[in-house]
Amino acid sequence: MPDIRTSELKDPVDVAEYLFRRLKEVGVQSVHGLPGDYNLVALDYIPKVGLDWVGNVNELNAGYAADGYARVKGISAIVTTFGVGELSAVNALAGAYSEYVPVVHIVGCPSTISQRSGMLLHHTLGNGDFNVFSNMSRQISCATSLLNDAHEAATLIDHAIQECYIQSRPVYISLPTDMVQKKVEGERLKTPLSLEFPPNDAEKEDYVVDVVLRALHAAKNPVILVDACAIRHRALNEVHELIEKSGIPTFVAPMGKGAVNETLPNYGGVYAGDGSNAGVRDRVESSDLVLSIGAIKSDFNTAGFTYRVSQLSTIDFHSNYIRVRYSEYPGVRMNGVLRKVTQKMGKLNIEAGPTPSNTIPQAERDSKDPTITQAWFWPRLGTNFGIWEMRFPKDVTAISQVLWGSIGYATGACQGAALAAKELGLRRTILFTGDGSFQLTAQEVSTMLRNKLNPIIFVICNEGYTIERYIHGWDAPYNDVQTWRYKDLPAAFGAKEGEAKTYQVKTKEEVEKLFEDKEFADSDALRFVETYMPKEDAPVALKMTAEASARNNARLE
Amino acid sequence: MPDIRTSELKDPVDVAEYLFRRLKEVGVQSVHGLPGDYNLVALDYIPKVGLDWVGNVNELNAGYAADGYARVKGISAIVTTFGVGELSAVNALAGAYSEYVPVVHIVGCPSTISQRSGMLLHHTLGNGDFNVFSNMSRQISCATSLLNDAHEAATLIDHAIQECYIQSRPVYISLPTDMVQKKVEGERLKTPLSLEFPPNDAEKEDYVVDVVLRALHAAKNPVILVDACAIRHRALNEVHELIEKSGIPTFVAPMGKGAVNETLPNYGGVYAGDGSNAGVRDRVESSDLVLSIGAIKSDFNTAGFTYRVSQLSTIDFHSNYIRVRYSEYPGVRMNGVLRKVTQKMGKLNIEAGPTPSNTIPQAERDSKDPTITQAWFWPRLGTNFGIWEMRFPKDVTAISQVLWGSIGYATGACQGAALAAKELGLRRTILFTGDGSFQLTAQEVSTMLRNKLNPIIFVICNEGYTIERYIHGWDAPYNDVQTWRYKDLPAAFGAKEGEAKTYQVKTKEEVEKLFEDKEFADSDALRFVETYMPKEDAPVALKMTAEASARNNARLE
Repeated sequence: MPDIRTSELKDPVDVAEYLFRRLKEVGVQSVHGLPGDYNLVALDYIPKVGLDWVGNVNELNAGYAADGYARVKGISAIVTTFGVGELSAVNALAGAYSEYVPVVHIVGCPSTISQRSGMLLHHTLGNGDFNVFSNMSRQISCATSLLNDAHEAATLIDHAIQECYIQSRPVYISLPTDMVQKKVEGERLKTPLSLEFPPNDAEKEDYVVDVVLRALHAAKNPVILVDACAIRHRALNEVHELIEKSGIPTFVAPMGKGAVNETLPNYGGVYAGDGSNAGVRDRVESSDLVLSIGAIKSDFNTAGFTYRVSQLSTIDFHSNYIRVRYSEYPGVRMNGVLRKVTQKMGKLNIEAGPTPSNTIPQAERDSKDPTITQAWFWPRLGTNFGIWEMRFPKDVTAISQVLWGSIGYATGACQGAALAAKELGLRRTILFTGDGSFQLTAQEVSTMLRNKLNPIIFVICNEGYTIERYIHGWDAPYNDVQTWRYKDLPAAFGAKEGEAKTYQVKTKEEVEKLFEDKEFADSDALRFVETYMPKEDAPVALKMTAEASARNNARLE
Repeated sequence: MPDIRTSELKDPVDVAEYLFRRLKEVGVQSVHGLPGDYNLVALDYIPKVGLDWVGNVNELNAGYAADGYARVKGISAIVTTFGVGELSAVNALAGAYSEYVPVVHIVGCPSTISQRSGMLLHHTLGNGDFNVFSNMSRQISCATSLLNDAHEAATLIDHAIQECYIQSRPVYISLPTDMVQKKVEGERLKTPLSLEFPPNDAEKEDYVVDVVLRALHAAKNPVILVDACAIRHRALNEVHELIEKSGIPTFVAPMGKGAVNETLPNYGGVYAGDGSNAGVRDRVESSDLVLSIGAIKSDFNTAGFTYRVSQLSTIDFHSNYIRVRYSEYPGVRMNGVLRKVTQKMGKLNIEAGPTPSNTIPQAERDSKDPTITQAWFWPRLGTNFGIWEMRFPKDVTAISQVLWGSIGYATGACQGAALAAKELGLRRTILFTGDGSFQLTAQEVSTMLRNKLNPIIFVICNEGYTIERYIHGWDAPYNDVQTWRYKDLPAAFGAKEGEAKTYQVKTKEEVEKLFEDKEFADSDALRFVETYMPKEDAPVALKMTAEASARNNARLE
């Protein structure tokens, strides 16, 4: 193939500049990652195009942070280096793939010349094969663009970013050192990337809408159940139109927590089968029609597969198909269908929903024990399992990795979420994490300090992996962790005077005092709270889910 | 296939017990890893068979630690959980594959029943495919044993452990929850696993030995150059017989550092092309025959491909072939050949080798500047690049990951190496790591404390990624790191009174004083030394290697 002659390009732009300008265009302001010798020259383009470099402490944390950032801002980017760097991030990116989070993973690679000659370079397996790692990442990427040729580079970059956004999953872009400064056509940048979902076939869509409306009009006490894919496939506007106009009692699955404005009168709480409040469970399970939007019916999202909802009274809305009872309509996206259903729905005759309980249980209120218990703490305020009991104010985004469930995710994701929130002018980022989890990724607090972020961090000190204890090994040493002096960490990670405030709460009274402390609530500093709870205590939903998991692990036939 | 009836087994033993008893048999005493719900029941067998559980802080660190442990004890094991756990460790295991380190990776998996029914479980991609992660690991494993059937389990376990040891590379064993307690034939355990290399074909071996001897007898000033594969393929006894009997001047490549007893009179220092001392370089490059044993001629091991040694005057000894000049002899292993060469060699007429320089350079000795410089520090004492300048006492094992080169490896590996050293009754484990590197895996200090290990840790505080600065981005913010209060970390990670001592050295005088401090040298406590060196300073060999790397990255044709 002939080399592109710069003179033939109307507006020659370096490949790396093109890539980062495209990322900026789609909403990435800060780029996560770590430097490595195969990506250094590319990193120079980040400030050049007006983006910010985060500078994470390790690649796994950077991957989690990119995931958190994407959940708030809609898309994110992470830069790693060949082999060592990219493989350290692979768990985080598998999580993003599993949970439909759009992360652009850019890997700085050895030059195409080194690759062709099979040079024995550092960060390789020593076997001359430069495709091993990109082949691993193919399994967890919805597109893989290897930029080995300047002729294709711009097209491959555009393709990867579009797929990332539209499929809402990670993509992999390899950037060899000798391609960074090759020239591509900058004129292309005048046309923004199209990030629109392809519209449904109109006739097919109308047909499905009719079927849905017939079922809806026949229903006496329908409910709406919103789950993760409604968030991840960007259908929340359509979902809210339906909820608000219809008044149908609405619930969320654990992975859908935060999808719905919880101050709406018809919001009813979290449904998770046997893990739900009794009132919520009765209302959902006695419904004659469940409009299930974006469901991911995984074990931890259903308290161990304990939904008691028949497919005969269910309509499933998904990003690539609709299912009405057992009739499937493949190739139809929920967004357009939901919007039309709302428009054409007319008046419905709907029973009112229950008021969700998020009060402190009577037994806890009567208790004189000063110990902070899970049953008392979460309704008073909200992780993963405990947070089900909280009713959120409007415009709260909840981030939890229920399906992939990687321990340590929360602290990394908090850095990315806090940074995204800061860019969007959002008020506050709060992290709840267990002590066992926190230990895996603790040094991401350093990245928060480096980037002047001020989240509130609650580390729940309960002596180890309590969720594992509920599954197996109640007193086993392998479920214990080393006892850290957690609140000494922000200072050790370099917090300067006024950059971090630390707290320790061991009693209910200390919690109450902390929540009343104006300085705590409104500080510009990172706030770090050691929160002590008993080792044996856990939210009810966690207990049930863990027990179901233990049963499933032990099943012999 | 019929189910194994326990009554048909002479000595029924649970699969997990069989596995851990085999690991103990081959020399694993401590098992690295983290608990996860898919491996919890299996972990109960570790104390049961008399093994110790390390309990690492995260899986990447556990992988590095297992690598370090294997380099000292000959083999190691790590247990992770499906998906999230195993992927976090994949970078460490790729490194072990790259550098021929035998690590048995055991992954606790969902039950075979869940797998067959494609259940939507946590820690999956949500697509019902339970083989994605084991397929990734296949690329970096010399054997993969999926224990999905009790009939094959014992055979597959034996096969994996044997391959791990003999090929000296990681293997992958999946252990589904429902297989942990299935029964296998315990009688097999009465016959220890054979870990012998298959012997060479005798006629072929004799033929090669003759060719080698002819070349050796014709040589006037041969040298021996020992590299990593001599260590990893367990040829050090044969190598030492040759060195000691022949008296041939002997050098090591950087990755071979520690392979040779450096107190031998014919030991001459580290050869790394242009990165060598002038005396070493002249002697090796003027030799008429280089006996190159277990070479890995990677960029960082050759100071950027700067060997000036002709293949016409080289004999290469490898684990699976011998090459004499350009004549190749595939399928012959070095161990047998080296032993016979030594036996049959007779008297050689060999010139004496040079004495290696490991004194402090004159300019540094004359300098009145109190600043601790790399040129002063390493001969006075030795990381990766600096350590080339040190002459070791006898029985020192050096661990450095020159080919894979994963930043952060050293701190993780130190935990495993220190534990292995303790088990073997070795005296002391010393870690040298940069501040940038240390940040990636800092919390492994917590695991050292938890396991009562007492290494000496030097964190070289020089404000970030100096090696990257030498490649590109001298003043770029992406090569900076957050300034930590490093020596506050052992206490934050829970060191109790007397478990850790911390130090700070900023001048040459403070270094001298520290080295004279008997309490420092002989303490039972973990010792942590913040060691300040200038940001712009680096060992000469690092500078040269980095410059060669920058040139190679920038090459356009």
